[in-house]
Amino acid sequence: MFDFRLECSDGAARAGTFTTPHGEIPTPAFMPVGTAGTVKGLSTEEVQGLGARMVLANTYHLYLRPGHELVRELGGLHAFMRWDGPLLTDSGGFQVFSLAAIRSVHDDGVDFRSHIDGSLHTFTPESVVDVQRALGADVIMAFDECQPGCCDRATAEAAGERTLAWLERCRDRFAALQGDSGAPTQTLFPVLQGNVFDELRAAHARRTLELGDWTGYGIGGLSVGEAKEDMWRTLELLDGVLPAGRPRYLMGVGYPDDLLEAIARGCDLFDCVAPTRNARHGTAWTAVEGQVNLKAARFRRDTGPIDAGCDCQACARYDRAYLRHLVVAGEWLAMRLLSIHNLRFLVQLGEEARRRIGDGTFEGWRRDWLGRYRNERSTS
Amino acid sequence: MFDFRLECSDGAARAGTFTTPHGEIPTPAFMPVGTAGTVKGLSTEEVQGLGARMVLANTYHLYLRPGHELVRELGGLHAFMRWDGPLLTDSGGFQVFSLAAIRSVHDDGVDFRSHIDGSLHTFTPESVVDVQRALGADVIMAFDECQPGCCDRATAEAAGERTLAWLERCRDRFAALQGDSGAPTQTLFPVLQGNVFDELRAAHARRTLELGDWTGYGIGGLSVGEAKEDMWRTLELLDGVLPAGRPRYLMGVGYPDDLLEAIARGCDLFDCVAPTRNARHGTAWTAVEGQVNLKAARFRRDTGPIDAGCDCQACARYDRAYLRHLVVAGEWLAMRLLSIHNLRFLVQLGEEARRRIGDGTFEGWRRDWLGRYRNERSTS
Repeated sequence: MFDFRLECSDGAARAGTFTTPHGEIPTPAFMPVGTAGTVKGLSTEEVQGLGARMVLANTYHLYLRPGHELVRELGGLHAFMRWDGPLLTDSGGFQVFSLAAIRSVHDDGVDFRSHIDGSLHTFTPESVVDVQRALGADVIMAFDECQPGCCDRATAEAAGERTLAWLERCRDRFAALQGDSGAPTQTLFPVLQGNVFDELRAAHARRTLELGDWTGYGIGGLSVGEAKEDMWRTLELLDGVLPAGRPRYLMGVGYPDDLLEAIARGCDLFDCVAPTRNARHGTAWTAVEGQVNLKAARFRRDTGPIDAGCDCQACARYDRAYLRHLVVAGEWLAMRLLSIHNLRFLVQLGEEARRRIGDGTFEGWRRDWLGRYRNERSTS
Repeated sequence: MFDFRLECSDGAARAGTFTTPHGEIPTPAFMPVGTAGTVKGLSTEEVQGLGARMVLANTYHLYLRPGHELVRELGGLHAFMRWDGPLLTDSGGFQVFSLAAIRSVHDDGVDFRSHIDGSLHTFTPESVVDVQRALGADVIMAFDECQPGCCDRATAEAAGERTLAWLERCRDRFAALQGDSGAPTQTLFPVLQGNVFDELRAAHARRTLELGDWTGYGIGGLSVGEAKEDMWRTLELLDGVLPAGRPRYLMGVGYPDDLLEAIARGCDLFDCVAPTRNARHGTAWTAVEGQVNLKAARFRRDTGPIDAGCDCQACARYDRAYLRHLVVAGEWLAMRLLSIHNLRFLVQLGEEARRRIGDGTFEGWRRDWLGRYRNERSTS
């Protein structure tokens, strides 16, 4: 039910097709984030309409509210949120470390307090597999300890060891649950850690490979505060270690330029809240002006679309003058239209990268695209 | 360019067609409120999709932000907000009295401070016509002084006199502007005041009739705190005074049951923020359970739609359990889906009332409908 077909490459950049029980994902592909079972403000028809093929949801949020057992009872997350396409849930690890008040991290898991009501909970490698099994996404993620990008080597090493120990437990729990009747068909991705320390990264990846015949790999511990060069070097290192025939999901990336840089270094799948979060602040991405904030007074009389080259619903129908008004007035429609635009911008970037990889023009196109996007960005 | 064809009636209830330069409105009809040039959270395609034919926008809000001159420069409100159908703007009077910090009300107009930035502004009968001319809605409203439903007779009388004096000035200003080249084709409705004092109401209506051959009438000063019986009695009184061949727009109504009561008393057009405001609080209307709040724990496992008889996008696709989750989690999609449902509920109520008036079954249907809606309402 799970398969990855590597179709062609251009340098380290890859074009492939990831097959899941709920459909195929042509890669590279950006996955919109539907934190609490909804891509903020959008209907699932709209998410589908903007060309997204796979959606991510957050285990931490759904575990706390409405509760994974309720979601299971209601037919699983696909049915609950009315999304028939491929779904991926994270392990909850990243959210526990970034949102919750941690009580303690120990070898058995993490004790934390809910950011919603302060109630006390524990995640263990086994429990996050159980929760994700109840949610029923196609791809589920192993529990990992994610340390900030600026942590020291000893901290990174200890977190990596714990992540590997937890991976074995996740793997065993996942295997033990395979016999359940009526359970969803799922696959488990490990999360690669090691921060920006090359030897740790390489060792962690090799040891992860030894722990199972994984259908894909999550690359964690990046885009968490480290320098960009460290991220690119780490991806180049991993490109040499990970098997070519498996999809690589770079967690938490990204912004348009970062997405393109990561595609150039062999990553296939991406997620990030940046498109919707930026939209809530009035920020939109454009190919020739880089990132712009529509609050700016210069858009007051601008009757052009956000991005003349974009085919999204917002660009097809609304102009910058009106969108600026909506942003300034704090109208919800602004957030929604800018979310649609920013998400479509990343999805379209993945689609074009795929075409360029296919016809062997990726590298030149990437350079031109980034030059255009970045040169202008500084002026806005 | 403006015409009202009264097609049939059942008791005092009327079915007609109101023709404007931007299209026809079969009446009775509920008009969604697009305060700042957007029906909160919805695209204009969605507003059209739920069957709404005419949209209202608020002069006070658009005057303050983005400014009527900018809207005119950008092609008028129809073009600005991408709504090709009929539009109505209010005079700003009601918002000045309810939202702004009033500095003084005098015979020449109202001095007020913006609720946005505290800046000082003045509305006069002439200026609100000018502002509405710049916005370019099909129907514009005369400036009136709206007093609360609980005010005394002397206050109501003075406000009525001022409203009549302002009406003459609005009428003259509107007439003087008719020669402008390139100006929109518009019509001016007077606003009937007099609160709940029958003699004041009757006299105000008669004197308004004497001041012009109006294409339609706004009924103001109701749904502002008075008792329901006073509202119904006032509408019955006005039904006997107003010409049958002109549309009657009951301003600020309403809730489903009030809409039906007002239709039964000869009103044709309605507007209210209740559908979207209630949606933001998780409240939805249903035909057989009355008003329900989706936060209620009893909806936790409810896999039915909000209202089994509703054909809106929310009821067609989503269930109560999921909507409850979205409401509890504070997700924007909840507000949007419940807005679509509540607006469709009122639009559909107007459509069905029209059919029932057409086939002479309105009165019996109205009684049954209200009985069902109200009996259950107390239990939720």
